[in-house]
Amino acid sequence: MTAQFEQIIRFSMELEKLKGVMRRTRPLGLERFENSAEHSWQIALMALTLIPHAEEEVDALKVVTMLLIHDLVEIDTGDKFAYHDDHDDYENELEAAKRIFSLLPSDQGQKLLALWTEFEHSETPEARVAKAIDRLMPVLQNVHNGCRSWLDHDVSVAQVLKKNRAVAQLNPALWDYVQDLVIQAADKAGIRRD
Amino acid sequence: MTAQFEQIIRFSMELEKLKGVMRRTRPLGLERFENSAEHSWQIALMALTLIPHAEEEVDALKVVTMLLIHDLVEIDTGDKFAYHDDHDDYENELEAAKRIFSLLPSDQGQKLLALWTEFEHSETPEARVAKAIDRLMPVLQNVHNGCRSWLDHDVSVAQVLKKNRAVAQLNPALWDYVQDLVIQAADKAGIRRD
Repeated sequence: MTAQFEQIIRFSMELEKLKGVMRRTRPLGLERFENSAEHSWQIALMALTLIPHAEEEVDALKVVTMLLIHDLVEIDTGDKFAYHDDHDDYENELEAAKRIFSLLPSDQGQKLLALWTEFEHSETPEARVAKAIDRLMPVLQNVHNGCRSWLDHDVSVAQVLKKNRAVAQLNPALWDYVQDLVIQAADKAGIRRD
Repeated sequence: MTAQFEQIIRFSMELEKLKGVMRRTRPLGLERFENSAEHSWQIALMALTLIPHAEEEVDALKVVTMLLIHDLVEIDTGDKFAYHDDHDDYENELEAAKRIFSLLPSDQGQKLLALWTEFEHSETPEARVAKAIDRLMPVLQNVHNGCRSWLDHDVSVAQVLKKNRAVAQLNPALWDYVQDLVIQAADKAGIRRD
């Protein structure tokens, strides 16, 4: 028993490192960038409010677990900006996932590694809903903060709408609504269309 | 439908504010204090690893949801340090909970308000397990970072062991193990015993 507690505590202390992994988005009202730990919290909680609107029936605990663990690999690889070419870095991320989840008792680590992999492949209803919510949040943050990270990185409206269309897999009406918000906010901020 | 999306988005943007609520503990390896959003993420994820060791059978999604929302009231009230007399501020926190959850569609808001209240009262297995994990994490952080917040606030070993004994409600063997870690780390850091 003690050996398992030791492993769980070691894993929990490893989580500390995600608080130091910075993203490209600033929380509303703060000048600093947000980190991947607080981002993961926000989308896990947002998922609970959006799952009732998901087109496909999903296991809520599975979606929330995916979102809580989805960015852990960044402890080793760092955050990749969604609009950069190196965003897909699956092999390195898989190595990181194996290292981090192996800190846990083996049965728990294997379950979480399988969930992380399922999220990455986006082929199940839970993975699709989780991906949609992971995409949605930074779009909403930009819509509410004058499109700051899109301006900082010269991202166009077309890129935003293409990159985040996975939101429609959660609910097409939600994506229609969010697209309108994006276009309004982008026009106001002077973001280029193409 | 659009009205519900508007409400959910408003709630999700309100969550941004918890990223600016600072606690008294520093993440391992960082000089800044941690905020309540990243803390909530860490304990929600830790819960998933500890629930299989809980003495009482619990609904994991309920525990995780409680942990994701438990500190939201701090958006209005600020973080209260566990060892200060004003730690219990239930009436103000209830007002805050009502305001924040009322941003959501009414059925969702009421469910989360009920869960928040259940957590506060600690009378159900899920609330007891969630409370235990909320207590456990800052103890582990102190054990691993030279007892910094206990030193900063002149907290004794006796106070730590008394304040966090709720961890035993999750699993008595875990609490025994953690108490040993506390005593070892406190002795090394020169924390007073009483």
